[in-house]
Amino acid sequence: MSNGERVDIYDSTLRDGAQAVGITFSQSGKMRFVHKLDEFGVSFIEAGYPGSNPKDMQFFEDLRKEKLSTSKIVGFGSTRRANTDVADDTFIHALLKAETEFCAIYGKTWKLHVTDVLRTTYEENGQMIADTVGYLRENGRRVFFDAEHFFSGYKDDAEFALKMLGYAVDAGAEALVLCDTIGGALPWEVEEATRVVRETFPGVIVGIHAHNDCGLGAANSIAAVRAGALQVQGCMNGYGERTGNANLTTIMPTLELKMGRKCIAEGKLSSLSSLSLYVDDLVNQRPDIRAPFVGETAFSHKGGAHVAGVQRNPLSFEHITPESVGNSRQIILSELAGGANVVHRLRQLGREYDNVTKEEVREILAELKVREGDGYTFESADGSFKLLAQKALNKHKPFFNLDSFRVIIEKRGENKICMSEATVKLNVNGETEHTVGEAEGPVEALDIALRKALARFYPTISDVTLSDFRVRILDPKDATAATTRVLIESTDGSKSWGTVGVSPNIIEASWQALLDSVEYKLLLDEENQG
Amino acid sequence: MSNGERVDIYDSTLRDGAQAVGITFSQSGKMRFVHKLDEFGVSFIEAGYPGSNPKDMQFFEDLRKEKLSTSKIVGFGSTRRANTDVADDTFIHALLKAETEFCAIYGKTWKLHVTDVLRTTYEENGQMIADTVGYLRENGRRVFFDAEHFFSGYKDDAEFALKMLGYAVDAGAEALVLCDTIGGALPWEVEEATRVVRETFPGVIVGIHAHNDCGLGAANSIAAVRAGALQVQGCMNGYGERTGNANLTTIMPTLELKMGRKCIAEGKLSSLSSLSLYVDDLVNQRPDIRAPFVGETAFSHKGGAHVAGVQRNPLSFEHITPESVGNSRQIILSELAGGANVVHRLRQLGREYDNVTKEEVREILAELKVREGDGYTFESADGSFKLLAQKALNKHKPFFNLDSFRVIIEKRGENKICMSEATVKLNVNGETEHTVGEAEGPVEALDIALRKALARFYPTISDVTLSDFRVRILDPKDATAATTRVLIESTDGSKSWGTVGVSPNIIEASWQALLDSVEYKLLLDEENQG
Repeated sequence: MSNGERVDIYDSTLRDGAQAVGITFSQSGKMRFVHKLDEFGVSFIEAGYPGSNPKDMQFFEDLRKEKLSTSKIVGFGSTRRANTDVADDTFIHALLKAETEFCAIYGKTWKLHVTDVLRTTYEENGQMIADTVGYLRENGRRVFFDAEHFFSGYKDDAEFALKMLGYAVDAGAEALVLCDTIGGALPWEVEEATRVVRETFPGVIVGIHAHNDCGLGAANSIAAVRAGALQVQGCMNGYGERTGNANLTTIMPTLELKMGRKCIAEGKLSSLSSLSLYVDDLVNQRPDIRAPFVGETAFSHKGGAHVAGVQRNPLSFEHITPESVGNSRQIILSELAGGANVVHRLRQLGREYDNVTKEEVREILAELKVREGDGYTFESADGSFKLLAQKALNKHKPFFNLDSFRVIIEKRGENKICMSEATVKLNVNGETEHTVGEAEGPVEALDIALRKALARFYPTISDVTLSDFRVRILDPKDATAATTRVLIESTDGSKSWGTVGVSPNIIEASWQALLDSVEYKLLLDEENQG
Repeated sequence: MSNGERVDIYDSTLRDGAQAVGITFSQSGKMRFVHKLDEFGVSFIEAGYPGSNPKDMQFFEDLRKEKLSTSKIVGFGSTRRANTDVADDTFIHALLKAETEFCAIYGKTWKLHVTDVLRTTYEENGQMIADTVGYLRENGRRVFFDAEHFFSGYKDDAEFALKMLGYAVDAGAEALVLCDTIGGALPWEVEEATRVVRETFPGVIVGIHAHNDCGLGAANSIAAVRAGALQVQGCMNGYGERTGNANLTTIMPTLELKMGRKCIAEGKLSSLSSLSLYVDDLVNQRPDIRAPFVGETAFSHKGGAHVAGVQRNPLSFEHITPESVGNSRQIILSELAGGANVVHRLRQLGREYDNVTKEEVREILAELKVREGDGYTFESADGSFKLLAQKALNKHKPFFNLDSFRVIIEKRGENKICMSEATVKLNVNGETEHTVGEAEGPVEALDIALRKALARFYPTISDVTLSDFRVRILDPKDATAATTRVLIESTDGSKSWGTVGVSPNIIEASWQALLDSVEYKLLLDEENQG
């Protein structure tokens, strides 16, 4: 059935994905997410529901100042309310104000929802679709019609569901997105209904928007593609309400590698695993180690026969190569793949590692294994990774020696503000500095004291600001005594770098990440002078 | 396509599931697992590979003393080695020694594996299958033939794959289980191949054994059933090597509720959610909150429109009733929360809120909005939510008054351990307590000091332990000065509750959550006495 046509990926993480329990994006996180997806090459990014909340509207304004190379931004909204004039609809106005070339509009195609949820007539529902799509077209927008609960509606009354789609098509919608909003459709039902829609509306693009309530989100999406759908909506890492939306991280490699359908930028699939981790990190989700394609154990081999077999012929026990999705085989990670990863990472850090020897790689790998066992992660902590490499190769010269630090956090009386005072004592070339910083939070106080202590010797330290700070509890079962991982991102205005700290003490974990951050900056400066 | 015939569930958790990274059963855990599955009514339980390790053999011996009402125990093994006599095979002898009525034997149906892994001829491979199945039949066993890598083999050379199955059938195998060992098959490929096998071997039962490498484990299993398969192999909670085996916890409700096919004991489906949690507990796995059907959030509703809709007509937003799988509907409190959500949450807290007035709901809602604006979240913090409700209704009597707390975190010298000392001063009924606690982490030190201070007045406080601790930075852009949200989960052995704290100071946020936790416990105790 494959016709080889490109499939457009439509990412709904920022709207539908953010409906998930526990998933929240900061405004700056959203922006970084958009740029990451643009680089990866998804066709469409649904950036929010401008009518529903002012934060989303602000984000569309911010987006207009950004340049994207591949992805188109889409604004989301619903059909006008029943028995009103579309020109008076504040939500539609908000959508126009978002100034996106593309709008996605959801409307009803299931009778039950028309009568029981909207409480209006079938006729009026059709008119709502037609008016809304038409009005947006008149205002120069390109429109996708999201047929909410389409498969439930089609099962209940196919003729009615198709008729509602007809309103959207006649009013100028360029794509009909069939939504399994309730997540209850089976793959063969999706395939059959998609085929009928394709045949009924020949010139129109058909899309699929699936949910994972029966564990069939990916299966339903590819079933629709098999029947001719050319747009797949879903979320990164399968985030979403209830059991999540269709997982794009699963669907994209399946389309490209198993069905031979291009859907992202050329050559980008091999960064899928790191993209997945990046997104989890951004919203502070624990990565699913068993996730298809991108999970830590997705290409692990434990059974003896499998290990032997995979070494004789990887094809015999792996359906794709782990490298094609940027993942790695786990049994031989210690030697082969692990070493290759390290070389790859070192090359990214700079020219000085071009001639790194096998022995040196082994040294770094050994140190890396120890640290990872302790809970460190270097995926986004390039600064800490470089310092680790320098130390493992005995190339590290410390810029200062730390003598001690102390933080006092105090609150007196119920309504007083809690304040933190930090002192830092260190020495540089034999000279001692002992400084104090004060702030509401203990880490900020430490940061102030540390920068004060170093500024006399290394004035460029003042240019560094911390741009991100993330905390993850590694084994929550131990509650307050659990190991804490802190990831910090720093910038000096021209370059950004990440650092990491791990400790049962959250302040010490932060302190380690802070120290790595300033050391990395000093190392950068030295290299630029050298 | 449904022919209404019962589908046999074949649980492979104890063998294939235990191949997963991090999954280990104790011997007693295995036994409890078997009884739990027997009660639930799966047809077959694969209890191990008796030839491969003595522990498995011991387990089969133990099993013979047990009475099961529904499930049959299956022993697992492979075909004899190439160019040997089956009667001399120690593995086959072990399998016979396990004394199970049923044996599952895996063998090769993919040419690549015959030449590259077994390194023998196609002819000899067929003979290995025939000899092994035949020998077990002669010894009175009923035999399932697991066709390893069947779909890869079928794709490569269908005629060869079918021919190998023929050896098993001719030797007396009563079921042919088609295995997607590599996890790379697509649903329509599985459906097509299964249909051909059914047609080729009319009197023989066909089974399916799928893996989740493309996120299609459940889809491939039900595709095979659609094509006539009557046995589904998989693992509870989708445990298994790499990305896991086909998830029975997903497949069983799909078969029963969506496809109308019986597969477990009558009336048992409503204990599916608790079975899933039980199994996670047994092997110490963190439950997947997004798991289809059984996950904590599988029937959660957050968006305002969904909440209103589901209250008008649950069918409109749920594909099955949560109760049918023993789960429950969750209304999530969020920025979008309305009065209906609040009433629902209050009812869950206890009888005392049954007669809450509209005015009172409004008071609580107003307070909730303010707190949520500050970054609090009450989705999982039921303890803090109750305290908030009590305070909003002026029903809250404090159990103690806090005077002050102080935490000192100190590290001297590069290699010394970072220690935390916390002091807490509070008074209860005019009596002052001033205590100190010490630990590696500051929150643990605070927790110790707080419990010390209260224990004299409220001895039950000693029963409370913290079972989970989560930290989220709300706007990481502000880095170390950002607002921090801390969520704590506590338990007194019989009840669990969540509490939340928010502050730019991570220690104060933790402190708030700690205070709420002990206050909630004291409130519970008071209510139980009153």
